[in-house]
Amino acid sequence: MRTRPVQPDSRASPSRPPLVCGFTPPRTIGRVPTTDQSVDDPIDAPIDAAVHRHVEDVVSTYLAERRAELPELARTFAKAVDHLSDFALRGGKRLRPTFAWWGWRAAGGDADGPEARAVLRAVSALELIQTCALVHDDIMDASELRRGQPTVHVRFTEAHRAGGWLGEPERFGTAAAILLGDLALAWADDLFESAPLTPEMRDAARGPWQAMRAEMFAGQYLDVLAQAEGDESEERALGVARLKTAAYTVERPLHMGIAFAGADQATVDAVRTFGTDIGVAFQLRDDVLGVYGAPEVTGKPAGDDLREGKRTLLVALGLAYAERDGRHSDAAMLRGALGDQNLPQVTIERVRDLLVEVGAVAELERRIDALTTSAMTALTGAGLAEPGVTRLADLAVAATRRDR
Amino acid sequence: MRTRPVQPDSRASPSRPPLVCGFTPPRTIGRVPTTDQSVDDPIDAPIDAAVHRHVEDVVSTYLAERRAELPELARTFAKAVDHLSDFALRGGKRLRPTFAWWGWRAAGGDADGPEARAVLRAVSALELIQTCALVHDDIMDASELRRGQPTVHVRFTEAHRAGGWLGEPERFGTAAAILLGDLALAWADDLFESAPLTPEMRDAARGPWQAMRAEMFAGQYLDVLAQAEGDESEERALGVARLKTAAYTVERPLHMGIAFAGADQATVDAVRTFGTDIGVAFQLRDDVLGVYGAPEVTGKPAGDDLREGKRTLLVALGLAYAERDGRHSDAAMLRGALGDQNLPQVTIERVRDLLVEVGAVAELERRIDALTTSAMTALTGAGLAEPGVTRLADLAVAATRRDR
Repeated sequence: MRTRPVQPDSRASPSRPPLVCGFTPPRTIGRVPTTDQSVDDPIDAPIDAAVHRHVEDVVSTYLAERRAELPELARTFAKAVDHLSDFALRGGKRLRPTFAWWGWRAAGGDADGPEARAVLRAVSALELIQTCALVHDDIMDASELRRGQPTVHVRFTEAHRAGGWLGEPERFGTAAAILLGDLALAWADDLFESAPLTPEMRDAARGPWQAMRAEMFAGQYLDVLAQAEGDESEERALGVARLKTAAYTVERPLHMGIAFAGADQATVDAVRTFGTDIGVAFQLRDDVLGVYGAPEVTGKPAGDDLREGKRTLLVALGLAYAERDGRHSDAAMLRGALGDQNLPQVTIERVRDLLVEVGAVAELERRIDALTTSAMTALTGAGLAEPGVTRLADLAVAATRRDR
Repeated sequence: MRTRPVQPDSRASPSRPPLVCGFTPPRTIGRVPTTDQSVDDPIDAPIDAAVHRHVEDVVSTYLAERRAELPELARTFAKAVDHLSDFALRGGKRLRPTFAWWGWRAAGGDADGPEARAVLRAVSALELIQTCALVHDDIMDASELRRGQPTVHVRFTEAHRAGGWLGEPERFGTAAAILLGDLALAWADDLFESAPLTPEMRDAARGPWQAMRAEMFAGQYLDVLAQAEGDESEERALGVARLKTAAYTVERPLHMGIAFAGADQATVDAVRTFGTDIGVAFQLRDDVLGVYGAPEVTGKPAGDDLREGKRTLLVALGLAYAERDGRHSDAAMLRGALGDQNLPQVTIERVRDLLVEVGAVAELERRIDALTTSAMTALTGAGLAEPGVTRLADLAVAATRRDR
């Protein structure tokens, strides 16, 4: 799964103020603010001003608490959990909790009210779902790098190799990463359930919470299947984008957020339309970055989507347009590049040129613009409150105009 | 993970009546009883008389409901979910929900009361945790057979191969099985949360529910690590048995069950002691079956634990006793057999003889007896109600005296 999260844009221009302050995430697990901290410590900032940082604090504290509860017998496992915590807290822009938070605020949630901390806690659980998704996705894609550092399964593979242990290092690395991803998924539910929401709030959000997880796994499966089948259809590529990215990353987190606020059906419909359109646009931006993104910015190798054989809309359109234009050998070159683990840089360049020349990149940009426009129409017509609407609009723009 | 569940013993002697009737699990997903069924249809039996069957009905119906909720876009995924449902409902003795149910009954739960259906639903969620555990465990162990049939990852690997798809069949099979196991884990939580328990019941059971999942993953990790490190210590083998089997299979399910009934601390302590001792004894029986079990009964190849390099107490004692007796070359033979994927039958026979000759098997039987005795003492002193106590005692005996 491609899940490079949106940069909350600490480099935003003056005309577009930063959405959330660009605080450096803490490296210490379980850090809890103490009374001797200076008042300008990020954690003392209001949640609205630092959703990203507050989410990290909730996740970090929760992981430390759960680690401490593990029985003495599981001491060795606790050390493995440290790798999971490090992975969960290293990098990442907390996009899903941020959308959920601003959904709640835009639908009338009061950031200074008694429910704010409970909502923050519940939406932070989305970040542990994402941890599971990334850890397991990296196994499935055999990815070695994530956020510029070794993936979880690679870390355990390397530990096995360094220890000169028995059996195959890769199998050990895979087993450890499967179990740690499972743990993150179980703890996501535990964190969600631990939020002191009112029964009405919890009941209202349970639908999107449940749908989000099932749709994410469905989207990932369709993605893997499309790669295996060599599916070239636009329909399949858009289906994957809808489920794997739009539903999971934007639509359902927003749906959760507005459900906490007791939004009516008309609002739910409008916000889900906004979320779906922005989510698909987010994926289309990801398609472009997966081919053209700079490794030093994305933290992933150049042309990673091609090497993994991802069946993106960009690829589907590229193949269709090349065939339409009679460039059959170029289309064959692109087909051959997909899933080639040893893809040379020269071929990546040829694919990049081809996708521009046949108009696939331009078409993606057109669609991103169109989806952003339709999303904004849905958003502004939803009768939501400020500053939530502005923040959601900013998030939408940041999600679709980014370089990683 | 070794998780051959206990046979609820439809072949029990007249002096030990069947614990739960040996109904054949339904092959149809989402089967709901209709009014024209005959009155002796199993589903019309009281829950007490057919826990196993009632759990299957809850799981089957729930899986069908969730499948039906998947969006139209995820049609292909719904077909994959059918494999998961088939796996979850095929074979298996529903041991964890059965322990939890009888824990609730023994602690005063009323099978005819208004809470019975909610408790049944909540404990049935344990079966979906087990589905995740088995599907993921089979990937980790590269197991080809489970319950005498192809494992989930093997089914998808074969589908890939049969379709002549792109990429490596094994990688596709692994990806599909990771995602389906994840789905089972997420749906386990959803099923648990969907049970219409009172808030007090849910709060009381949340502790053991959460601990059970973390301890299970911890136990699996320690198991995998012990295999990699070639750990020969009795301590590690017992630690794995405590977490992976005792806590997950008996202690925590029972703890959940009695928590639903609002058991006091003294009862919780006594029942957890019973559960831990029976759970460890269950694993020690599994150790013996893993080396001596008949493939046609266990559904697994002969000597499967040896081939997988499992670091069981049986192996730890076998190595220690062989060295103590100066049988160093025999100990070396046993070490060499562990993890040998091509282990010949003649070596399996030599290991079997060795473990008997040095007294490791006899010591395991002694420990199983001692653990069963201490468990029964804890059980009878816990002040629990009939028929729950008798049923739990029967389950304990069935779990420790079985051939698969």
